[in-house]
Amino acid sequence: MPIVHVDLAERSYDVIVERGIMARAGEEIARVGLKGKCAIISDSTVAPLHSAALLASLESHGFLPSMHIVPAGEAVKSMAVAQELCENLAASGHDRKSFVIALGGGVVGDLAGFVAAIFYRGIPFVQIPTTIVSLVDSSVGGKTGVNLAAGKNLVGAFHQPRLVLVDPATLATLPQREYQQGMAEVIKHAAIRDAAMLVELADLDPLSREFPDSLIARNIAIKARVVEVDEHETLGVRALLNFGHTIGHGIEASVAYGELLHGEAISLGIRAALYLSEKRAGLDADASAAILRLQKKFHLPLVLNEAISTAAIMKKIQRDKKFSAGAIQFILLDRPGNAIVSKDVTSADMEEAIDLLRQKMQF
Amino acid sequence: MPIVHVDLAERSYDVIVERGIMARAGEEIARVGLKGKCAIISDSTVAPLHSAALLASLESHGFLPSMHIVPAGEAVKSMAVAQELCENLAASGHDRKSFVIALGGGVVGDLAGFVAAIFYRGIPFVQIPTTIVSLVDSSVGGKTGVNLAAGKNLVGAFHQPRLVLVDPATLATLPQREYQQGMAEVIKHAAIRDAAMLVELADLDPLSREFPDSLIARNIAIKARVVEVDEHETLGVRALLNFGHTIGHGIEASVAYGELLHGEAISLGIRAALYLSEKRAGLDADASAAILRLQKKFHLPLVLNEAISTAAIMKKIQRDKKFSAGAIQFILLDRPGNAIVSKDVTSADMEEAIDLLRQKMQF
Repeated sequence: MPIVHVDLAERSYDVIVERGIMARAGEEIARVGLKGKCAIISDSTVAPLHSAALLASLESHGFLPSMHIVPAGEAVKSMAVAQELCENLAASGHDRKSFVIALGGGVVGDLAGFVAAIFYRGIPFVQIPTTIVSLVDSSVGGKTGVNLAAGKNLVGAFHQPRLVLVDPATLATLPQREYQQGMAEVIKHAAIRDAAMLVELADLDPLSREFPDSLIARNIAIKARVVEVDEHETLGVRALLNFGHTIGHGIEASVAYGELLHGEAISLGIRAALYLSEKRAGLDADASAAILRLQKKFHLPLVLNEAISTAAIMKKIQRDKKFSAGAIQFILLDRPGNAIVSKDVTSADMEEAIDLLRQKMQF
Repeated sequence: MPIVHVDLAERSYDVIVERGIMARAGEEIARVGLKGKCAIISDSTVAPLHSAALLASLESHGFLPSMHIVPAGEAVKSMAVAQELCENLAASGHDRKSFVIALGGGVVGDLAGFVAAIFYRGIPFVQIPTTIVSLVDSSVGGKTGVNLAAGKNLVGAFHQPRLVLVDPATLATLPQREYQQGMAEVIKHAAIRDAAMLVELADLDPLSREFPDSLIARNIAIKARVVEVDEHETLGVRALLNFGHTIGHGIEASVAYGELLHGEAISLGIRAALYLSEKRAGLDADASAAILRLQKKFHLPLVLNEAISTAAIMKKIQRDKKFSAGAIQFILLDRPGNAIVSKDVTSADMEEAIDLLRQKMQF
């Protein structure tokens, strides 16, 4: 089984990628020294699919789990739900010796991680991601948080998991659209760090859902290597993971709720960022087109709904927490597999890139 | 001016004790490298007394402060108020480049510190404590948090301040009872680490409020030295600061709201802990009596209200988050100035000590 080690001194941990590991979760969790009471936080979609196997494995290894299920969907990423979960954990007898298991996608991981970060001023937690986005991206790196009315992820904590268990078998239970949107983050990782992986991804059959464990692990490792050098996003390196996300988040915040999944908005953001990479960082047009073809192959959207104005998207972008202290730092590719932080992108450039998203692609 | 340096590697900071430093706060805050926008979080009692001087100093040093005032009292230590403050900070244009200033007592410090810990996944904060408890105890050490219905401080974060500014002149504005209750923590620090200070405290006039800056700094240093060796309360050293707090918290949670201030409950807890120290750790009876006389001198209560049952207090103690995983670890003195963690205290011992609190003192 491929293991990605995330080296963060005393906060180091392993990401274990293994088909069927859900049924062995208790064994692996015991191996890292956790024991006793644990709170599984999951959602109403994932819990019915995967919690039985997890519970059985935990109980057979002597753990004392309690289940805490929230409704599926982004709305639970709130301070109110975090508080309710903390109250429920206390009422279930959890204390500073307990730990949390996040079982689900990115929303559950962010929320459960935040609960683990603040309950008794921080208890350990284990991530068991069940979507592509969460397994290659959000479950690794320790970013946890909830949303404010003022914006997404404006409240949170850096709190590294003690262990991440990736069971690629869970991907079989994903709806097709959910599977596809996750590929946007997979492609993003390859685009910023591993040009060879772009070629390998192009060979996958998007409908068969073949996604070799070794390729999943390599994709996770890209995130891990970035987090290792810039754990708290203070050095500008972790910012490279935001490739496609500046305009992507602006689009996500501008469309009607549910119109675009996160990865779909990011796919549009990647198209805009590729255009700006050609304009401002000399990215080769053929290399740019190859990435766009890869997005198309995984049925990711590349054309923006005409009804959404560039001005509306720009307004959301300006509120983005990445635009701290007013400066525009934009992530570009100067070549496939190499992302850079650019200060050369102007607001006018961004508007131009968003306008371009309304044009049909020519393949 | 006395400065206590808290050495926590890259999280190190200074506690500066100086009469009138409020009017120089901007200068000192600029010196540690903070700049730009800051959010002052204070309460409706403290803000009218001290915010004008603080604001003037900040503005004269180029800071851009916004004021965020919560009602005075423990009730604001909640997730709901923390969320409201985060929304207000975002609405006031604060972002990851901003910092927080906590201006007030322990409640404001814990709440504002928690907001700083979670806003944008953590921004710097400065503590400006204005009560004895907060200046010798809660402003140093990085414990932040809010209460749950299930218990006090059950949610929070370890988040060290970047700087602590102690202006002993603020103590002049405290109501007499508030001043007195704070002395319980001062006495506790001396009792666990500095026998000579117990003698010096006995020489102070409690009504004149003479409290030399150097003595304040030495008392803060006791807390600082403990925090340095056990920042996250994992090694049992920081637990020594809980002397008097196990039974004290149980009493505080058992009486009607407002009947006992925190320090008053701790005073009763110290009396119980002294009794148990004599019984289980061989503390000399005369030494014990000297500490009790010191508490009496500062008008701290030593006798428990008859209406509160031992059983009720024991029930609260068993819920205390210090009783993790069921083991009783009790902090005792084996001699003045030397606290130890004891596992020899039984539930029956604790009940006996609580019963004793109903007996009048013989001085």
